[in-house]
Amino acid sequence: MKNKVPYRIYLSEEQIPKYWYNMRADMKNLPAPLLNPGTLQPLVEAELTPVFPTACVKQELDNTTRYIEIPEPVREMYKIYRPSPMIRAYNLEKYLDTPAKIYYKFEGNNTSGSHKLNSAIAQAYYAKEQGLKSLTTETGAGQWGTAMSEACAYFGLDLTIYMVKCSYEQKPFRKSVMGVFGGKVISSPSNTTEVGKRILAENPGTTGSLGCAISEAVEKAVATDSCRYVLGSVLNQVLLHQSIIGLESKIALEMYDEYPDIIIGCAGGGSNLGGLIAPFIQDKLLGKTNPEIIAVEPASCPSLTRGRYAYDFCDTGKITPMAKMYTLGSGFIPSSNHAGGLRYHGMSPILSQLYDDGYMKATSVGQTKVFDAATLFSRLETILPAPESAHAIYTAIEEAKKCKESGEAKTILFGLTGTGYFDMTAYQSYMDNTMNDYIPTDEDLQKGFDTLPKV
Amino acid sequence: MKNKVPYRIYLSEEQIPKYWYNMRADMKNLPAPLLNPGTLQPLVEAELTPVFPTACVKQELDNTTRYIEIPEPVREMYKIYRPSPMIRAYNLEKYLDTPAKIYYKFEGNNTSGSHKLNSAIAQAYYAKEQGLKSLTTETGAGQWGTAMSEACAYFGLDLTIYMVKCSYEQKPFRKSVMGVFGGKVISSPSNTTEVGKRILAENPGTTGSLGCAISEAVEKAVATDSCRYVLGSVLNQVLLHQSIIGLESKIALEMYDEYPDIIIGCAGGGSNLGGLIAPFIQDKLLGKTNPEIIAVEPASCPSLTRGRYAYDFCDTGKITPMAKMYTLGSGFIPSSNHAGGLRYHGMSPILSQLYDDGYMKATSVGQTKVFDAATLFSRLETILPAPESAHAIYTAIEEAKKCKESGEAKTILFGLTGTGYFDMTAYQSYMDNTMNDYIPTDEDLQKGFDTLPKV
Repeated sequence: MKNKVPYRIYLSEEQIPKYWYNMRADMKNLPAPLLNPGTLQPLVEAELTPVFPTACVKQELDNTTRYIEIPEPVREMYKIYRPSPMIRAYNLEKYLDTPAKIYYKFEGNNTSGSHKLNSAIAQAYYAKEQGLKSLTTETGAGQWGTAMSEACAYFGLDLTIYMVKCSYEQKPFRKSVMGVFGGKVISSPSNTTEVGKRILAENPGTTGSLGCAISEAVEKAVATDSCRYVLGSVLNQVLLHQSIIGLESKIALEMYDEYPDIIIGCAGGGSNLGGLIAPFIQDKLLGKTNPEIIAVEPASCPSLTRGRYAYDFCDTGKITPMAKMYTLGSGFIPSSNHAGGLRYHGMSPILSQLYDDGYMKATSVGQTKVFDAATLFSRLETILPAPESAHAIYTAIEEAKKCKESGEAKTILFGLTGTGYFDMTAYQSYMDNTMNDYIPTDEDLQKGFDTLPKV
Repeated sequence: MKNKVPYRIYLSEEQIPKYWYNMRADMKNLPAPLLNPGTLQPLVEAELTPVFPTACVKQELDNTTRYIEIPEPVREMYKIYRPSPMIRAYNLEKYLDTPAKIYYKFEGNNTSGSHKLNSAIAQAYYAKEQGLKSLTTETGAGQWGTAMSEACAYFGLDLTIYMVKCSYEQKPFRKSVMGVFGGKVISSPSNTTEVGKRILAENPGTTGSLGCAISEAVEKAVATDSCRYVLGSVLNQVLLHQSIIGLESKIALEMYDEYPDIIIGCAGGGSNLGGLIAPFIQDKLLGKTNPEIIAVEPASCPSLTRGRYAYDFCDTGKITPMAKMYTLGSGFIPSSNHAGGLRYHGMSPILSQLYDDGYMKATSVGQTKVFDAATLFSRLETILPAPESAHAIYTAIEEAKKCKESGEAKTILFGLTGTGYFDMTAYQSYMDNTMNDYIPTDEDLQKGFDTLPKV
């Protein structure tokens, strides 16, 4: 049994990558630039630095540097929980009786419960280096907020978190976790910002959205001294930081002469998927290999599969720059799906461009099927997945079933972005058969598209 | 920096021990035998097999076999989450400015959230091998119940779990997690058993205890066809299975030429501590080394530090065998401390004997201090500990502070038994300053001692 792939492949600390990989340096068509909504001209550094930490702005605008060094203090904190394990899903393979080999990169082995910590550490570090005192951010599922709380505790920064109201209520204990790490959590929309007040006045019963929480966090940051705003997804810099997921994955698979035929990730704003595929998309862009890449989104919030590729605001309050992306319109309010981390109207500009250029596919799946997959996976693999991650599990299972039919022994890699310990309201709803499987109608979507800016 | 100890030491799959270590084979004074409460004679196999799976009974009574082979299917399931990481607490050391080297063995990297899975897998496997259809058990903090649910899902057994009422209410989502894995959870005391009805009649406001839940689970198992009872702590067999913690720890430390001067574990029934210290106590019993071993218990339930070494029932309903152990009396009902896993009136007979023979020390700590340590640890090490585990963290910090005073660079090893994701009610109570720090008075303890059987 020599060289048999173990259940879990752990790299050594020395194997943690020293550089992030910037996909833009190899893309044939660059993502369209962010626009100033007033002038409709591409944004320049000076316009962004009042909002984001300066080093983050530079990374956001850097379309050419292929490899960007990971600062030593960031690597030091990475070492506390990285390298993350690459796991061979032997039990799932056996259960499915498939010739496919299923691997997953598990990013939930830290208290934030997800991959979000990878970018949180980087952004908090750059803020600290700049001499800032505090940060603001938003959180959907709560994972990004927890990750930022951890990173800010580590680097000694104050943090205010606007948490999407529906998650705030579905996940009562998430607030406590952020509190343990010193984060201050506010349910969004709130009365602490002008944009929050306006949204509440227009739609008092709203359960909130990431887009709305972003508006509030940005407003707060800009109005506060020595404070900036940080975002956990969508942005180019976030995908850059998250490339560590894919880079480690590639090293781990290479140790066993494996290379994925299919790469699957859940996609909300795109941070996990963009990170997971980074080095593999490089191979694909350079014509070296041709893995199939599949983005999985919730049927309730289908930006890639049913959205439009257009310039749009990143937030509901329309105070952020405009980005060209697959979007449902910043006014689209998704139904209260339990995968809070996937309830975002737009998709990362980088992934949007790659999708538009045909480098990746997208699929969507309903909530009950996602929890069918999550429950099966829990019992077989003993990890209770986050609802977001379970979207990828669902599709990985579907692909493995296809392999059973065709007899192909494909290598499937998916991203297990996090754990579902704070999603038990959702799991209980699934077990009680009270889960909402609402899929937006074309009319629902049209209402969102009607909020797209005319550019 | 060659040979610098990494943050996390991961052993390879091949390094998972193939044998458990049975401390009794090397003990100078064996733990006193379990007694039949009717005859007051030592129990024989035939009396125990109606209650426990037969292979578990054999292990319970085996005082001589030093190494017991871990069955291959058990090792296969171990591989899903083991070897568990040995972590060097660099950030904690730096914060404390101590010359001490602090290591912790982290057993929380599985969905049960604790070390409990190590014995759950073994017991479920033996039950399955015997052809049993179902099992019953109790759970305090919910970790053992989750672990048994996972193991039973894996091996295909039905499971009924009596959950201590106070934990059932403090941890609403624990029930859901067990449900995901197919476990059926009942709040204890309940009306589903005679003993539960009796306890409810005597004390309608009781928040329950492990001792009470054990009574119910045993009654249910004995009354059900093809069913047995399993227990997650106290028993000799459980400490045997948990020896894997210590065995892996020793291998990991040896790779860096380390050997602990001080070994610290939280102690409720003793499963974690007994497992962690196993190979080190062997060295100590054989006169090879002399590490200091410290059991840490909650001040609210101080069996070692304030209890009596006497024969007692393992349960509140007095339907189990009698064990000689440090005990507060089976009628002792601890205050509703948040470390549900440590709310047990007695201590493992093996650990009790070792303590009585002077091989280990014991200390107790109040709840607020425990959460001070837990919060500090979270921020520095990015793992949110279970309240149980935080008892060990508290004492490790105290010992590291002593090293700072004395200038000694001692090597400290403690067991981080699990994560606190389902303990956010407790953490929130700590942050809200509403934590109960009640310590039993001598009169409170006397009431418990009054329930000790006259043997």
